[in-house]
Amino acid sequence: MTAGAELLRRNGYTGTGVKQIVQAANAPFGSLYHFFPGGKEQLGEEVIRTSGMLYLALFEIFFADEPDLIHGIEACFASAAETLRETDYADACPIATVALEVASTNEKLRIATADVFTAWIEAGTEKFGKYGLSAESARLLTIALVNSLEGAFVLSRSLRNTESLQVAGISSVALARTLLP
Amino acid sequence: MTAGAELLRRNGYTGTGVKQIVQAANAPFGSLYHFFPGGKEQLGEEVIRTSGMLYLALFEIFFADEPDLIHGIEACFASAAETLRETDYADACPIATVALEVASTNEKLRIATADVFTAWIEAGTEKFGKYGLSAESARLLTIALVNSLEGAFVLSRSLRNTESLQVAGISSVALARTLLP
Repeated sequence: MTAGAELLRRNGYTGTGVKQIVQAANAPFGSLYHFFPGGKEQLGEEVIRTSGMLYLALFEIFFADEPDLIHGIEACFASAAETLRETDYADACPIATVALEVASTNEKLRIATADVFTAWIEAGTEKFGKYGLSAESARLLTIALVNSLEGAFVLSRSLRNTESLQVAGISSVALARTLLP
Repeated sequence: MTAGAELLRRNGYTGTGVKQIVQAANAPFGSLYHFFPGGKEQLGEEVIRTSGMLYLALFEIFFADEPDLIHGIEACFASAAETLRETDYADACPIATVALEVASTNEKLRIATADVFTAWIEAGTEKFGKYGLSAESARLLTIALVNSLEGAFVLSRSLRNTESLQVAGISSVALARTLLP
């Protein structure tokens, strides 16, 4: 699962071979089909769901004891930028590459990515409501944040700099300020 | 080129086979290597550069005779949402899927995507400067817009709705209002 998650995040779903995953995991080849009788698709689905939830847990940590919404948002984007620099621009969103690849080609995997994004949006909406935002504003801010983060990841990985993540932080903070009571 | 562009946009780079492109183009197999001696990689690079520039031309059209920056931004996102609905959530950014796939795996294609994004950022910075924004604000707004659009495309294609694009329009307009003199 860990090896699969890393390969999918960096190389995408179609760009990752079953052999590669097994090799990266130092596992015997047969073990993949032992644990994942549905093969690469089943592993892909489980990786999407699991890594999506791990990423959500990371978000929860940033806002767990954070009394200030603006600080929390700034910390999120600063941390994302640091991770990208540290991993040579490889480790961004765990599911975005796969989400774009499968959106029009694999309905089972598309639904897995949709379930993850839905869980993120619901969790953010609930969390941001605690800072005094209406449910509508909290949902708007959450989706705007995910939009900015996902888009900034595309630019950052392509351009190999973190300017887009800095901008995402600034624009998300600007929006939050207009929504805060 | 046209067949390759459509397949790459929808299925990604690794998910598109040379045979598929030739079939979709109703061309004899040998013609691909005749016109693209570098094969799939050369075709991929030319598709990235050409479709990236076509997308930029679309942006230029939206702002060509638009006296109002806010209207222009709203029209961009509304049009993107309409295209997604009309194409059953297949046709979003022409280069994002490929950009994520190749960012850590194919330096030649990564540079092609980076050149396209750089051209977009420069064109937007110049255009938005004409609405009275400083060069710094115009660049910030451009990158924020691309961030939001690219991220909203990921969510929209995965969730098969256009809420993320509506939010991207609202958040981009909110940022533009804080930057306008």
